[in-house]
This record gives sequence, C-alpha cells and structure tokens, in this order.
Amino acid sequence: MEMILNFLPLTQQEQAAFLAAAPEASQVFLPVPALGSPVEAEAAQFSEAAVILGCPSVQQLSGCRKLKWLQTWSAGVDPYLAPGVLDKDTLLTSAVGAYGQSVSEHMLACMLALMKRLPAYRDRQRGRVWEDAGRAKSPALARVLILGTGDLGGHFAALCKALGAYTVGLNRHPDSPREHFDELDHISRLDKWLPWADVVASTLPETPETIRLFDAERLEAMRRDAILINAGRGSGVDCVALAAALRAGKLWGAALDVTEPEPLPAAHPLWACDNLLLTPHVAGSDHLPQTARNVAAIALENVRRYFAGEKLRNLMAHS
Amino acid sequence: MEMILNFLPLTQQEQAAFLAAAPEASQVFLPVPALGSPVEAEAAQFSEAAVILGCPSVQQLSGCRKLKWLQTWSAGVDPYLAPGVLDKDTLLTSAVGAYGQSVSEHMLACMLALMKRLPAYRDRQRGRVWEDAGRAKSPALARVLILGTGDLGGHFAALCKALGAYTVGLNRHPDSPREHFDELDHISRLDKWLPWADVVASTLPETPETIRLFDAERLEAMRRDAILINAGRGSGVDCVALAAALRAGKLWGAALDVTEPEPLPAAHPLWACDNLLLTPHVAGSDHLPQTARNVAAIALENVRRYFAGEKLRNLMAHS
Repeated sequence: MEMILNFLPLTQQEQAAFLAAAPEASQVFLPVPALGSPVEAEAAQFSEAAVILGCPSVQQLSGCRKLKWLQTWSAGVDPYLAPGVLDKDTLLTSAVGAYGQSVSEHMLACMLALMKRLPAYRDRQRGRVWEDAGRAKSPALARVLILGTGDLGGHFAALCKALGAYTVGLNRHPDSPREHFDELDHISRLDKWLPWADVVASTLPETPETIRLFDAERLEAMRRDAILINAGRGSGVDCVALAAALRAGKLWGAALDVTEPEPLPAAHPLWACDNLLLTPHVAGSDHLPQTARNVAAIALENVRRYFAGEKLRNLMAHS
Repeated sequence: MEMILNFLPLTQQEQAAFLAAAPEASQVFLPVPALGSPVEAEAAQFSEAAVILGCPSVQQLSGCRKLKWLQTWSAGVDPYLAPGVLDKDTLLTSAVGAYGQSVSEHMLACMLALMKRLPAYRDRQRGRVWEDAGRAKSPALARVLILGTGDLGGHFAALCKALGAYTVGLNRHPDSPREHFDELDHISRLDKWLPWADVVASTLPETPETIRLFDAERLEAMRRDAILINAGRGSGVDCVALAAALRAGKLWGAALDVTEPEPLPAAHPLWACDNLLLTPHVAGSDHLPQTARNVAAIALENVRRYFAGEKLRNLMAHS
C-alpha cells in the first residue's frame, strides 16, 4: 500500500475528496506549516512516503526512501531542480495555474493605483495635505505589453482587456494562439515594442535570458508616461537603474512585487522613489483563499491520474 | 445674431465643429480658466451673451442681459439653482454623463487598492519595511452594492462586472432595467442589503434624504470585512462615525473621494485611519483627457439642438 503524505491546506470537503480519489493508498494529512516554514513530520513518515503533496525541505527529502512523486503547492520548483535532490525517476509536478488570479489581480490593482496616482494621495493623506496631484491615466484603450503569456500573463491580459485595454503578448511561441491577447510577438522583438507601450508588465521566470532584461537602456527606451510592472522574478529588472530612471522622471511610475535582492536592503535607492509602488512578494502566495482551492484541485486531479496510471499535469523536468 | 461665449477646453478640431454647428451665431472662444477659477472675460461679453458654454461665476452671470441658455462643463449645477441666479426662462443644462468613466475608474482603483492592502504597503515602503500585510480580497464574485445607477453608478457596475463581481443597484426606479446590474432594488431597502455586501459604493448626490445616510448605525450594519466607497457627495457619510468605525476595526477599509467638510480639516480623525484611502475630490474633474472630450461632445450636440429648435439634453430645473 502506497503512502501519501499530504500537507496542503485543505477544507474538510477537499480532504474527503482526496480520500475518495485514492482508496488504495494510505493517506496521512499533516498540519499545514506557516508559509516559508518546513512541514513538521517525523522522519519515518518521509522515509515511507511514496507521494508527497506539499513543499518539503531539501533536507526532509533526503530522508525519503520510497518517493515516486512530489506535487508542490508552489508554481516554482527551483529548490527541487538541483542534482541529487530528487532521484531521476521521481516525478515532479508543480501547482502552476493556481496563482494566476491572485497575481494578476494584484498587478491590476497596482497598475490602476499608479494610473490614478494613489501612492501620491496616500503620502498626502499621511501628511494631512488636501492637494490635487494632477492628471490621471485610464486603462481604457491603454496599450499593454505583457512579457510571458502563461498563467500569470494570460490572466493579467484578460483583466486588462475587460477594462478596455489593447494587449500584446510576448513569448517564445507567438504562432500558437492565446486567448485575451490582441497580438502576439516573439520575445526577441521586445525592443520594437517598448516605445509603443503605455504599460509594460513582466511575468517572466528567471532564466539566463531574463536576468536584467530591463536594464538602463531598455528603461530609457520606454515612453516617458509609461508604467512598468514586474511580478515575475526580481532579477528581471535592474533595480538600481530603475531607481535612477524613476528619480529622473523617465517613467510615469513602476510597481514591483519582486526585487533583487529580496528582501530589499534598507539602504536601497528604490525605497524612496515617490512614483514606485513596492510590495514585498505578496501577489501570489496564499493571500487569496481561492489560491489554496486551486492548488488542491490541481493536486487532486493529479492524484486521480497517478492512481489511474495516466500522465500527470504540470510535469517538470529535473536533474 | 446670437452670441455664444464658449470657455470649454477644446481641441482645434472641436472648435471647428462648434463653428460649423452654429454658423448663424457669433462665437467667442475664451481661454480656459484653471479649474475652480472664474473665466476671465470682459463684462461686455457677458452682457451680450445669449449662450454660455462653461461655468461662469454667479457674479459674472449677474451681468448677463441676454442669456437664454447656460451649458455647464460640470455634472453638478448647484451654484446656479439658487433663486435669482438665472432668469426663470433661461435654460440650464449640465454635463452629466461626461464623468462616469473617470469617476468609476477611480472608484475601481480605490476598491482594488484596499482589497490588495496597497495603502498598508505604501506605508511600509515609506518606512523601508519589507513585511507581509496579510490576506487579500478578490473582486471576482465580490458582492457589490451600488447606490445610484446613473452615469457614475452604471459605469462602476460595468467595471465591477468586467472583473467578475455580482452587482446590485439601488435607486428610486428599480423597475426600469439598467445595464450592468445583476439586480435592482429600491433605495428605501438599503438596510436589507447592507449586511449582504462585500463592497458598498455610493454615487448619490446631496439631497435631504442622502445627508448622513451612512451614520454610525448603518456602518455597524455592514459586514466586518466590507469596503465602503463614497464618490457621491461628502455629506452622504458621517465622517466622524466612519473614523470611529475604522479605528474599531468594524470594516476592512474605506475609500473617500469626497468628505464633509471639504477640504478635510487638519485635525479631523479621518486623516490618521490606516485602513482609509483618502483622495481630495479628484475622481472626476478634468483628470482624464477623455472627460473634456465628453463635455465637448455633450455641449456640441446641445448647440446643434438649440439652433435646430430641438429639446436640449441634460435639462435641469431651477428656481
């Protein structure tokens, strides 16, 4: 009998659904750890587990003897990709797809806040100053350039289009149609699109090609009234160059949910940029209750597939 | 030959369209005054004007000898309603309908900012603190109660529905269908709906019935995780009671673009409420370029109607 070690945050109904989906397995449900903390389980439970649903520490994984499949609650699986962390035959699946709603809504909130100058009004409120901050911008007819057209970029495009924007998506396969984008183009043509966009939003993961993609030169290529949003990985934007561009008035504003490094050091020049809206990597995480439901649904469907011998969703290659 | 005194902010194209719409009139285009300042025109121009397009001061109006019609650039016409300001035969038309996009987008930006705790993150940013502020809310499936279903309320309902919310509109004629509302009910049934709503948004003008509509008791009747938005008139909310409710944690948050009084006095308890987003009556005004285009279009259509002997749009009764 295979053992499933499950430490996803579940409702009672979801727990019952997991039990029903794999009656042939022994299922152990563990208390959900606080975000960022390792789950508390006994070493014996790891050594016996054939399936783990959740995000164990690399050290905990090293105690696994029978692990055949790891399903994470996160969209990124970076810690598990290093050589030796997982046996080469162990299946690895992510929860990519669960976070699009949460992250895209956060991006939209930041975009609209900048368009309506809400950070400036918050500062005035704190100073008890009743003073007009000047012209606003509208999402209607705004030209929105979105880097990455997957779960995050696709959801964000849908929200922008719902408010009347025109959306262009950049990815590596622009010939495959994607809903919610008015146009698609290859990411290599970024420099052609930068001077066109009212809003530039990156949802890109970290790869060798995306590191400091937004350097001083590309920031300079953006329109003077443009907004930059980064909800991908912090390394995608040169944060020192961005601070300089914002202070020099080269952009309408920027919103970062991710920075390099994280947390942002107290002495970093970004903190004091008036037209920057900074949030501490909170767009996704477990901040919307719906996200946990999405993660549970992805894991549940994969449990069903696993025991039916079907191919799993969100399979990730690892060393 | 009738004289039109026009001090709307116009593009060259729009000015040409006004000239073409009334070739039989003498049209004088004056420099647009700064917002809130009276137009600079000579007394003789007022005494000769048959039509004024813009918002003259009451004093300037007193010099009019031939005025037959006043078309304002504002949606509200309060200053012109007092007895004696306009002759009883003078037509008065407003620019209601021009501000819906601007005000509703501002309301949406505030709603999303509160849902995603952006005011708290702005405060942390100012203190150079990288710290999670906790759970967020989603506009998807949110239950949004909108008081007033006209230009402002209707536009706001459309935006909320575009993001997946369920909208209920309250007005005095709930039997007339209104686009973008899932349900309509009579404003007298407000108290039935208050405990239901995740978001309560008022776009009501000031009338004897709306003064302090949101008093301590109604604020108490709202859900503990609800958001209150006021973009109607400041008198609709008891601002002292709201400050007390926010400090006592009785609401998720509130956004006010209007207060009573305005400007808000420096000693008012609202300023220091953490979960309040306060903007100084800037949601409408001339903050979106599109608003001036909308005002020009309304005035232009009315000029055409006026010289064609047709009934004007946006006619307002006055003493």
